[in-house]
Amino acid sequence: MRTLLHIDASVRKATNPNPDHNSISKRIAMQFVDKWKSANSTDNYIYRDIGLNPPDFIDQDWIGAVFTPDDRKSFKQREKLALSDQLFSELSQADVILISSPMYNYGMPAPLKAWFDQVMRINKTFSFDLARGDHPIEPLLSGKTLILVTSCGEFGFGPGGEREHMNHLGPHIKTLGRYLGVESFHEITSEYQEFGDERHRQSVANALKNAGLLAGELANQE
Amino acid sequence: MRTLLHIDASVRKATNPNPDHNSISKRIAMQFVDKWKSANSTDNYIYRDIGLNPPDFIDQDWIGAVFTPDDRKSFKQREKLALSDQLFSELSQADVILISSPMYNYGMPAPLKAWFDQVMRINKTFSFDLARGDHPIEPLLSGKTLILVTSCGEFGFGPGGEREHMNHLGPHIKTLGRYLGVESFHEITSEYQEFGDERHRQSVANALKNAGLLAGELANQE
Repeated sequence: MRTLLHIDASVRKATNPNPDHNSISKRIAMQFVDKWKSANSTDNYIYRDIGLNPPDFIDQDWIGAVFTPDDRKSFKQREKLALSDQLFSELSQADVILISSPMYNYGMPAPLKAWFDQVMRINKTFSFDLARGDHPIEPLLSGKTLILVTSCGEFGFGPGGEREHMNHLGPHIKTLGRYLGVESFHEITSEYQEFGDERHRQSVANALKNAGLLAGELANQE
Repeated sequence: MRTLLHIDASVRKATNPNPDHNSISKRIAMQFVDKWKSANSTDNYIYRDIGLNPPDFIDQDWIGAVFTPDDRKSFKQREKLALSDQLFSELSQADVILISSPMYNYGMPAPLKAWFDQVMRINKTFSFDLARGDHPIEPLLSGKTLILVTSCGEFGFGPGGEREHMNHLGPHIKTLGRYLGVESFHEITSEYQEFGDERHRQSVANALKNAGLLAGELANQE
């Protein structure tokens, strides 16, 4: 039995009275989940819509608390870390992580960055040891698969594309994936949203198809 | 008379009972501001500590409001955009923008991304016109100078460095700078924080020196 952790980051809802306002990234992620569930009906499924319910920002007391050894943490410090503990617990249980995110201003929406800032924890997600020299950080989690679904208004953000150098969404999350214990990374992209043209329709159609195919493939891998 | 907009993004305070907890990026930015003020005592100065007072996350109603023409915006929509209007007004007044930011998880702290998501506004920061073909977005602001002060735990994030490909802080903000009307970009970096060694002390000392020099140079440019 595997656990799928599904994080949606768009501040748009999946369905709205005006369907033009529906989140594209959430729709593509849902396609993945539907196929996954139909092939893995007994698996655990954990869902967070952080676009609609953003995690708190970390603050200085949060940093103080994470650097305090567990047996010396005050009640207040434990309280301060309750959300982080919960989000980390969801992450650590996950075999497969599905993150859907629109590109906002060439990077992740602030709520998704807030989620990363909450789950990246010393002695939980990573260890730190200066005995390792100039590379003191090592992930503590391992063996996870990450599927990143992105939706961009513009296009050309992939390798060799004209906006590749402006892309701080996928490459950033891929970098962070290592510290989530990700060993297998898949990205499904949808582009051209702001053009609203045939290229956009084709891009979304391809992403939906690829999401379904990838879900089927990963579901049968166990 | 020029206007300096100063945005601090660290969730740490500039000064704490334990000086080891003091924000490095805030200290370097303050060095810039002190030199700037001593040379430009009559200039306007606008300050936001978004690390301690993070802007709200944008949400779906916010997106609906920014895409509603001004003369059709409801009272509720105007209320929803009040903070964004204020942050944009501060940005538009600025001749020089100073942003200080630690690197959190290889990118900006979530509150700084929340600030960018609030100020990036259609028909305010940028215009959008499909008549421009595949490059429909153009900045509406111009002539600004951006000084970015960063503090990183690790090192090698600059051009040619071993962690350059992991750096989604400076390059991301440089990309966004174009849409803030930035035409002159300066970055002052401090590295090695988590090593706490001589390299770190040297890096902070250099950054402080460079911040003072740059402030003097820019202050005399008018």
